[in-house]
Amino acid sequence: MKKVVTFGELMLRLSSPGFERLLQSPELKVSFGGGEANVAISLARFGLDSYYVTRLPPHALGDAAVRALHAEGVRSDYVVRGGSRMGLYFAETGADPRPSVVVYDRAHSAITEIEPKDVDWGLALRSAQWFHTSGITPALGPKPEACTRAALEAAKRAGVTVSLDVNYRRKLWSDEEAQRVLRPLVEFVDILVASEEDLESALGISLPQSLDLGADRQHRLAERVAQQFGIQMVAITRRHPAATGEHDWTAVLYERATSALFRSPRWAINPVDRIGAGDSFAAGLIYAVVTGRSAERALAFAVAASALKQTIPGDYNRVSVEEVDRLLRGVDTGEVQR
Amino acid sequence: MKKVVTFGELMLRLSSPGFERLLQSPELKVSFGGGEANVAISLARFGLDSYYVTRLPPHALGDAAVRALHAEGVRSDYVVRGGSRMGLYFAETGADPRPSVVVYDRAHSAITEIEPKDVDWGLALRSAQWFHTSGITPALGPKPEACTRAALEAAKRAGVTVSLDVNYRRKLWSDEEAQRVLRPLVEFVDILVASEEDLESALGISLPQSLDLGADRQHRLAERVAQQFGIQMVAITRRHPAATGEHDWTAVLYERATSALFRSPRWAINPVDRIGAGDSFAAGLIYAVVTGRSAERALAFAVAASALKQTIPGDYNRVSVEEVDRLLRGVDTGEVQR
Amino acid sequence: MKKVVTFGELMLRLSSPGFERLLQSPELKVSFGGGEANVAISLARFGLDSYYVTRLPPHALGDAAVRALHAEGVRSDYVVRGGSRMGLYFAETGADPRPSVVVYDRAHSAITEIEPKDVDWGLALRSAQWFHTSGITPALGPKPEACTRAALEAAKRAGVTVSLDVNYRRKLWSDEEAQRVLRPLVEFVDILVASEEDLESALGISLPQSLDLGADRQHRLAERVAQQFGIQMVAITRRHPAATGEHDWTAVLYERATSALFRSPRWAINPVDRIGAGDSFAAGLIYAVVTGRSAERALAFAVAASALKQTIPGDYNRVSVEEVDRLLRGVDTGEVQR
Amino acid sequence: MKKVVTFGELMLRLSSPGFERLLQSPELKVSFGGGEANVAISLARFGLDSYYVTRLPPHALGDAAVRALHAEGVRSDYVVRGGSRMGLYFAETGADPRPSVVVYDRAHSAITEIEPKDVDWGLALRSAQWFHTSGITPALGPKPEACTRAALEAAKRAGVTVSLDVNYRRKLWSDEEAQRVLRPLVEFVDILVASEEDLESALGISLPQSLDLGADRQHRLAERVAQQFGIQMVAITRRHPAATGEHDWTAVLYERATSALFRSPRWAINPVDRIGAGDSFAAGLIYAVVTGRSAERALAFAVAASALKQTIPGDYNRVSVEEVDRLLRGVDTGEVQR
Amino acid sequence: MKKVVTFGELMLRLSSPGFERLLQSPELKVSFGGGEANVAISLARFGLDSYYVTRLPPHALGDAAVRALHAEGVRSDYVVRGGSRMGLYFAETGADPRPSVVVYDRAHSAITEIEPKDVDWGLALRSAQWFHTSGITPALGPKPEACTRAALEAAKRAGVTVSLDVNYRRKLWSDEEAQRVLRPLVEFVDILVASEEDLESALGISLPQSLDLGADRQHRLAERVAQQFGIQMVAITRRHPAATGEHDWTAVLYERATSALFRSPRWAINPVDRIGAGDSFAAGLIYAVVTGRSAERALAFAVAASALKQTIPGDYNRVSVEEVDRLLRGVDTGEVQR
Amino acid sequence: MKKVVTFGELMLRLSSPGFERLLQSPELKVSFGGGEANVAISLARFGLDSYYVTRLPPHALGDAAVRALHAEGVRSDYVVRGGSRMGLYFAETGADPRPSVVVYDRAHSAITEIEPKDVDWGLALRSAQWFHTSGITPALGPKPEACTRAALEAAKRAGVTVSLDVNYRRKLWSDEEAQRVLRPLVEFVDILVASEEDLESALGISLPQSLDLGADRQHRLAERVAQQFGIQMVAITRRHPAATGEHDWTAVLYERATSALFRSPRWAINPVDRIGAGDSFAAGLIYAVVTGRSAERALAFAVAASALKQTIPGDYNRVSVEEVDRLLRGVDTGEVQR
Repeated sequence: MKKVVTFGELMLRLSSPGFERLLQSPELKVSFGGGEANVAISLARFGLDSYYVTRLPPHALGDAAVRALHAEGVRSDYVVRGGSRMGLYFAETGADPRPSVVVYDRAHSAITEIEPKDVDWGLALRSAQWFHTSGITPALGPKPEACTRAALEAAKRAGVTVSLDVNYRRKLWSDEEAQRVLRPLVEFVDILVASEEDLESALGISLPQSLDLGADRQHRLAERVAQQFGIQMVAITRRHPAATGEHDWTAVLYERATSALFRSPRWAINPVDRIGAGDSFAAGLIYAVVTGRSAERALAFAVAASALKQTIPGDYNRVSVEEVDRLLRGVDTGEVQR
Repeated sequence: MKKVVTFGELMLRLSSPGFERLLQSPELKVSFGGGEANVAISLARFGLDSYYVTRLPPHALGDAAVRALHAEGVRSDYVVRGGSRMGLYFAETGADPRPSVVVYDRAHSAITEIEPKDVDWGLALRSAQWFHTSGITPALGPKPEACTRAALEAAKRAGVTVSLDVNYRRKLWSDEEAQRVLRPLVEFVDILVASEEDLESALGISLPQSLDLGADRQHRLAERVAQQFGIQMVAITRRHPAATGEHDWTAVLYERATSALFRSPRWAINPVDRIGAGDSFAAGLIYAVVTGRSAERALAFAVAASALKQTIPGDYNRVSVEEVDRLLRGVDTGEVQR
Repeated sequence: MKKVVTFGELMLRLSSPGFERLLQSPELKVSFGGGEANVAISLARFGLDSYYVTRLPPHALGDAAVRALHAEGVRSDYVVRGGSRMGLYFAETGADPRPSVVVYDRAHSAITEIEPKDVDWGLALRSAQWFHTSGITPALGPKPEACTRAALEAAKRAGVTVSLDVNYRRKLWSDEEAQRVLRPLVEFVDILVASEEDLESALGISLPQSLDLGADRQHRLAERVAQQFGIQMVAITRRHPAATGEHDWTAVLYERATSALFRSPRWAINPVDRIGAGDSFAAGLIYAVVTGRSAERALAFAVAASALKQTIPGDYNRVSVEEVDRLLRGVDTGEVQR
Repeated sequence: MKKVVTFGELMLRLSSPGFERLLQSPELKVSFGGGEANVAISLARFGLDSYYVTRLPPHALGDAAVRALHAEGVRSDYVVRGGSRMGLYFAETGADPRPSVVVYDRAHSAITEIEPKDVDWGLALRSAQWFHTSGITPALGPKPEACTRAALEAAKRAGVTVSLDVNYRRKLWSDEEAQRVLRPLVEFVDILVASEEDLESALGISLPQSLDLGADRQHRLAERVAQQFGIQMVAITRRHPAATGEHDWTAVLYERATSALFRSPRWAINPVDRIGAGDSFAAGLIYAVVTGRSAERALAFAVAASALKQTIPGDYNRVSVEEVDRLLRGVDTGEVQR
Repeated sequence: MKKVVTFGELMLRLSSPGFERLLQSPELKVSFGGGEANVAISLARFGLDSYYVTRLPPHALGDAAVRALHAEGVRSDYVVRGGSRMGLYFAETGADPRPSVVVYDRAHSAITEIEPKDVDWGLALRSAQWFHTSGITPALGPKPEACTRAALEAAKRAGVTVSLDVNYRRKLWSDEEAQRVLRPLVEFVDILVASEEDLESALGISLPQSLDLGADRQHRLAERVAQQFGIQMVAITRRHPAATGEHDWTAVLYERATSALFRSPRWAINPVDRIGAGDSFAAGLIYAVVTGRSAERALAFAVAASALKQTIPGDYNRVSVEEVDRLLRGVDTGEVQR
Repeated sequence: MKKVVTFGELMLRLSSPGFERLLQSPELKVSFGGGEANVAISLARFGLDSYYVTRLPPHALGDAAVRALHAEGVRSDYVVRGGSRMGLYFAETGADPRPSVVVYDRAHSAITEIEPKDVDWGLALRSAQWFHTSGITPALGPKPEACTRAALEAAKRAGVTVSLDVNYRRKLWSDEEAQRVLRPLVEFVDILVASEEDLESALGISLPQSLDLGADRQHRLAERVAQQFGIQMVAITRRHPAATGEHDWTAVLYERATSALFRSPRWAINPVDRIGAGDSFAAGLIYAVVTGRSAERALAFAVAASALKQTIPGDYNRVSVEEVDRLLRGVDTGEVQR
């Protein structure tokens, strides 16, 4: 079993039931979530030996968070315990045309005080094949940023493949801060996942809007990023908010070795829970690449995986490789499996 | 803050969970609702100084109803307490092609015994800018009818703008009764909200079906109503039940001063809860007009507001002015706000 | 009131809430279901004198199952009590593109040990007008198969009309086993309900794919089945899994007496619960034929009934004849009935 | 199977969850209940052929009420359908020292308009062994009173044993009204169930408080009632509200033939739901007497049955004869049955 | 209506359902709570003109908190909006012998940054009769401490009666810190509520354990506190954790003017929710004193009120004056009120 | 960390909510449970390196069962996957005087077909300190019996301490069968846990009832068992079903080395969930003995641990060593920990 390591913040997610607005009823559904943890959980479901690194407070909520990781098959050997609070976020599920809303309460959380020395990255990455993190973690403060850098350096030293999901969060920092912090970190990255907006805001990569490139636009963008930062594969995800409640979900993948741009099929989704869509895409891509699928097939797998994610409540992509592959083969959709 | 006053019946709403039929499971979701109260609540959310007038029994359910008004920011200073029962309605949510169903149990409710002298309308309307009621209230019996008339006369005396949502309810009275009672009341009205069917059944205004007017039909209808009853603005709402589960939701607004008919954009909605759609439209229109938006922009605001309402469980439009305006600006739809 | 009798297995259905995957939350929604019982319940709702025959264990779960039948108006006079366990099935509701999944746990259930002599079919079918069963029951083992045959023979002797829903279940047996067992039983059948795949797998009836018959294909298939087994009416149902989450639901009905093939209107459905769709179709067809509607109108009734079923959680079609007829008349869809 | 017939009002019960106050949360648990229906349901659970007579509106709630009777095994052959509303009651469960509270909304309900001719009592009581009703029914208005009288007369004519549970409800009428109406009806009664307060308020039977009779008090009271109205058995129930949250629950039974007074054992109960305790006592007594148990054993059975009832949420006593008898034999209490 | 003003922190309370441990199930019940807010809500239920002062963030959770105050009839005119997070606490309900557990997450909450100038205490206390706060607020940091002092000084200037509930929280500060901060503040207090442990830890008042004073101990303690700080009334509450799951709940009240010590009756409670017991006691005492009840009757009212509180889920004492008085009169306990 | 290994059947537990009877509402709470798994989970909570061995089917339910083990910190390295169904049990929670009821549906479950060779016991027990199983496992059939024997032999060979909880289940086998199978297995046991009834029915050890031994009875019984089977410690648990809803819970422990009998303190419990009480006792005993506590202190720990268990819904004892020790020190009971 291939070992993959992810690093980030795990938060308690508190969601209003159904399509209710926050606190409309005196009840919240509770789970744990966070970009990189969602990737770790998806990878464990896919059968990889998945480790997640974070810092959690040593109280009942932190314990429950570790339990949740274990339940999903993720190993917590390198999880640091300390600090006094977990990050939280409150979420309400939208219904078109009402957007989903997330209210963060993650300041002062345990991970913001993580010290680079808290994690022995050499040990954590020993015999690992992959390291994944996102642009959210360094946005949480100087200590998480330093710890991210330490992890990336250790990964590079150990010859571990590195992926990063840019995940630009406007509520956490400005374009300028993001670019100042992220651009040096992206130098370490082998596979980058981003939206077009991520590339522009967080990495400062854009093409003039005046330039009418049509379908070529993504190709040119990916190419430029790949060249500038020395990245092997650049994936760009895109949601087309249809007027109708169904969402076209697609992505492209640029492979630097061949200069080829692959385009995924389009999935029309009636989303049950959009949170975690990008994370499930990243996990699908990592799984497919690390198990040797071609760039084109890896992209198709990643998009299908994240299409399935969006049909499941909660942050996690609770599906198996077999289920993704069945979907790719076009079996069963719309029927009852019995 | 502008003072607005609404008058009508507040009922206990008992709904089956999810898409279940009534009493399929031994559980009902409970809230309070009623056409004019829904308008009052929406106006309070929009930041107006919103008063609601009704009659409620002096027991635990009546107390809870007042609490619900207060929680939504509606003032109950002129609520009359008396009588022995609240009106109730049982509701089940449809899913296309199954319609939503409402079973009323409102006979003998507290408001049916309201005496015109129970409310000091002079006091209630003092320094108010707007009075709103609907065609449901006079349908509840001679006493609510007399009380409605007293309110309208007081509003006229005080120079308060009057709006009325026709809201024809076939289960409460016949076309003949409705026309006999409503036509004189509509003489007091400045802004009228109705569907085409409302105009025909409850006000006796129609155009021959043989007349092929196409898009002009609504214009001619609105014009005729405006002239006959001396109304400044006539809004006609329309739902186009698509075969597909999504509902086109549009409205037109006729402005008598300019003889212009404005047509709203069309919203494709996948409705979570249709009850209260018309009320949220009326509230949107009142808010926009009272805060000085033009007829065209007021119509757009009202339709967008009611599109949002239909994505929220329960009768109330739990949205802010800012959220409606964001939707009008086309921001965020289909994304997670974070 | 016309007496109809159905025979099959009633199982405890355990479903994850909402769109959750199985055991994602520590809660299951519980009901009872089974193809023939669903038909019996639908027929009772339609006002027929509906009897259901099965074998249930004499413990708390079996008692609750009988209670559920009684609550739905189904008579249990000929239900056999014995055995030690009920069949169960675990179900999760899909959302496009994720399919619904059923996990059966029905081996060794009470009905697998039913002895033909346990049921006095002469008595059960006395003055009955209709007997219905499905291809699932004989798939459960030699004893249910023998009991099905006994029922069919008794029905034939008593001049009772017989319908059978093929309901091929790949998890229960192979094509070969199904054909060996079902083909002789189908000789007893007056009205057959099947999908195209059912006809091919369970009855061995197919047309070469190479044959480009277009819309004629179903006609040819139905005709062939009708002739080969001496069946009066053959209904073929079809779901067109749209890419969008809405499902086109249609059926055709072949009438042997006239050699006519009737095609139903197409219903675009946003399915709340697909389980039991076929059963509600069969019940609609039985009801309409037994109450004297023409083949064409019977087909329309059956398809509309099963369209409504798919909007209701659970296996049962909790609708009345009046509600189906309202839908056929095009009244109310998309509006609130009040 | 012995046929027993009961008559009264069936209401929709809406209860706040757990120990919450009414409408503290936006959810109500729903069931059906009513003194005589609770007796009918308990008798059906005990295996008797139990019929319940009432009047219910012909809409979705009335249908659900009939379903609930059927689910519990009660026959509805003589149920009258008509009127426009069901009686309702809202209930919150107390916890010592907070009492349980019931808010009735039963005025104008379907049964208040029942006409004596609506029920063919000769048919309903044909071959019945027992008729039971309570002092609540005649309190609902002149028509229910007339219908009760018609039932009692028919029962007398048919030689059917009659029981009546006094069930005095201060919210429905005054002592004077109750005595005026009930005293003549009690002349028809063979077995009377009452609390001491019932005897005084509703029948005008009391002993001077100055009289220090100790344990003899109940004997003297029962004797006096039995003689005055010609009653064969008089049961007096008593709850001793302990300071501690456990409730001592006992009863006495006076047998006129022997002038003996039997005293039940005392059950210490930690009540889960007190509503329906008296009804389950009456049902236990009826069952035990009609199946030939001695007065002493019948009393013990009735008290044990109602002790069990108070451990079950809802109005109904969902227990079997075997479970009551196990409790009387002292088996299993406090253990897990496995 | 008498105006009373309270000041403190309002937190979001997240509780596991039933007796479950925290996060045992993926669901939390949500309400708002906080010592002084609980007092304010209880006083509003009792019919006083109740104002609550706090600082809440200007986002969806803060809005919902204000809504909750309004729903309970508490006025928020002087609530300050600002900061970025609300205090939270997670609670699980114990069952003997397992204690209830509270996990606080209130550091960095909005109120910790409140500036004394944020509240115009002169305005807030204008024409008020009472000001109440607790020892928790100054424990939250220097700014809440300064703001408490400003409030107390303003109250003194305005001649408003001041009460303080010591509410010592070991998790918030040490004995030394508490004493340093609280002792000067207690100089402003007219009525003090405390447990014996509070007096010792937070005020440094104790009697040698060696001194065998028996029932006199509380008298001597109260007297000493009253003299040392110049307090008019000192109430000492006491819970006697019985071994059996029922809790004896009593209190004493020392009146300095008469040097008398009153002892309350003892209430045996089977607690549904212990949180807020002390707050409901304080509210009962304030209500009874401000409405002119004698010290002895005020104490009895306060203890009965808090006995009722402990039977209701959530922080609030959702009872009326009439309900407390009924309990004091011994009416209804253990019966159903109907 | 000390390694402990347990072996048995893990079942899906389906419980009615609250105190409802089975299927009273259409909802079941779901968890996993089984005597030995409950012990394993408790030991993991206590911080030991806990392994659980069983056989589970390779489908969604089996996967969820493994997830549940992992979430609780139990390792599944030696879990065998195979078979087609999991054992199930349906449970309803009693309330005095109504007993809890368990309905098993575990025949034909995966573990009944386990082959001794499926588990490499040498590997599983390598470096383990303890092996625990119960008398339920060999009752499930010849294969589980053979596998139990193989495990015991391997444990003996490896010098691993062996404990066995007799757990006699009358529904699974007769006294004769139990004695024939269990007596030879008990020869391998170092520490035995049993009730008096277990000793008599399942091991054939009893003292004549005529013998009036009083408190000595348990001593003599334990001594006899210890001598006859060569056991080092014999624990006898006892529940005294009080009449009041509280349960006295005690145990004794006989230590063969010293011939001493230790008696635990008595805990008065108001049980929330009795299932798993014995398992939590066994786990407490194992933990305390393996970590070197004296027999007397081990007994106290075990009884306190199982007292806590009974306050928590579900099979598992979700408490830490610290929480048990706090209870033993008498801290916090009846208070809110904050």
